[in-house]
Amino acid sequence: MNHAGLFENISRKHSFLCVGLDSEIEKIPSFLLKEKDPVFEFNKRIIDATYKYSVAYKPNVAFYECYGPKGWKSLEATVKYIRKTYPDIMVIADAKRGDIGNTSKMYAKAFLENMPFDAITVAPYMGEDSITPFLAYNDKWVVLLALTSNKGADDFQYHNDDGIKLFERVLSVSQKWGTINNMMYVVGATRAEKLKDIRKLVPDHFLLIPGVGAQGGSLEEVAKYGMNSKCGLLVNSSRGIIFADNTENFDSIAGEKAKEIQQEMEKYLSERSLI
Amino acid sequence: MNHAGLFENISRKHSFLCVGLDSEIEKIPSFLLKEKDPVFEFNKRIIDATYKYSVAYKPNVAFYECYGPKGWKSLEATVKYIRKTYPDIMVIADAKRGDIGNTSKMYAKAFLENMPFDAITVAPYMGEDSITPFLAYNDKWVVLLALTSNKGADDFQYHNDDGIKLFERVLSVSQKWGTINNMMYVVGATRAEKLKDIRKLVPDHFLLIPGVGAQGGSLEEVAKYGMNSKCGLLVNSSRGIIFADNTENFDSIAGEKAKEIQQEMEKYLSERSLI
Repeated sequence: MNHAGLFENISRKHSFLCVGLDSEIEKIPSFLLKEKDPVFEFNKRIIDATYKYSVAYKPNVAFYECYGPKGWKSLEATVKYIRKTYPDIMVIADAKRGDIGNTSKMYAKAFLENMPFDAITVAPYMGEDSITPFLAYNDKWVVLLALTSNKGADDFQYHNDDGIKLFERVLSVSQKWGTINNMMYVVGATRAEKLKDIRKLVPDHFLLIPGVGAQGGSLEEVAKYGMNSKCGLLVNSSRGIIFADNTENFDSIAGEKAKEIQQEMEKYLSERSLI
Repeated sequence: MNHAGLFENISRKHSFLCVGLDSEIEKIPSFLLKEKDPVFEFNKRIIDATYKYSVAYKPNVAFYECYGPKGWKSLEATVKYIRKTYPDIMVIADAKRGDIGNTSKMYAKAFLENMPFDAITVAPYMGEDSITPFLAYNDKWVVLLALTSNKGADDFQYHNDDGIKLFERVLSVSQKWGTINNMMYVVGATRAEKLKDIRKLVPDHFLLIPGVGAQGGSLEEVAKYGMNSKCGLLVNSSRGIIFADNTENFDSIAGEKAKEIQQEMEKYLSERSLI
């Protein structure tokens, strides 16, 4: 999927929602624990209930990795299920990888070739040769960390070299490595006020925005400051949707929560005459 | 294992060698492919042949992850084998993880609790709350990226805020989060000339030094500029040892290569009167 394809999905679904699959086994409804692969079963039902309202899913790899080989099987099964059942939807591995070139190549193989995800989140600290192996795949994306949603973002991301903050340098320099068709950036919703300035540096790229919901970011502000003429936003919500309920109706409640967010998104898309 | 325990092992073995287990299946001797778990079998023989000359092993997680659940089984089996057979040796997960707090907690669980490694490499970009969950385990270590060995290190790590480069800020700020007993730093051997300045910032911490061998760094320079009164160095070599040969004798050749490095290390330790 390229930039135009992603905007087409957004236009068709009136949504720029990404559902985060942070599917911690301790938090899923207990009646699912009798299933052979409870985490996959949970994800499958969440996906079936929220698909109409979303354009992307983002499994958080840590929540699978912490169960070892079994967790990786749940992750693989989830990606395969989305690919097969909803081939138009984007699947993002939230993995925050990044290493020297020959190692990043193996991470790229793991996530963009073997599973296969459409996109992977990557940390910029190690620079160009740690990123480019992920850009070697057609119609696949790097989602590069720029300004993150957590408190620790203040520790290094604002490091200011002659008026240029580190996250701004990441945004500027990395545009030489990819295009609007294979690179997007993570900007936390908790930093929504920064989106106005960030849009001056990256007017056309898609931004993946975590931090709405449990982390306190505002969808209205994100849309106000971050939206461009092709929407340019994927806003992630995880816990607020997938763990909204833990009864047998958890999936339909998750669907309702996703619909609520989609309807708010529809309003902002409509106000900008994008639908 | 704490700082004193690590120095004790170095003193006893006359070595500060870490053997990198970047065990790519395409590069291991072909006769091993008939084994049930060829990567584990390869690692086991490498470990048995090099144990006498090394104080740490560092599986590069990408090279396991790219084979999915099967790769994770090889990784688990490798860690278990080292733990059981050579309980005094340090095992480092070269994973370059790091995410918001609740996610880093899951990565920490995966690597420091479930497998269990002694240490994990972590990327600093997301700041304090992305690191501290890895520091919550007794006698376990964070190995934080500071100045890496690759070309891309120049892209962001030298970003200079009022005379303080980003990697220097990482070294300074992160010392508030951990101690010399649970934090060490990655400094690439290809940047050996920087070690003198880095030692002013972190005089007592252990440094994990990749980049000797295939990447071109010099062990002599690393020892000259980086060694402190408790050695303070773990120098990694991967490809130069584990892929030195691909015949049936690969393990004894790997042992010889490890011994060569160990003997050079012994010389530097002796020159500094550390043994």
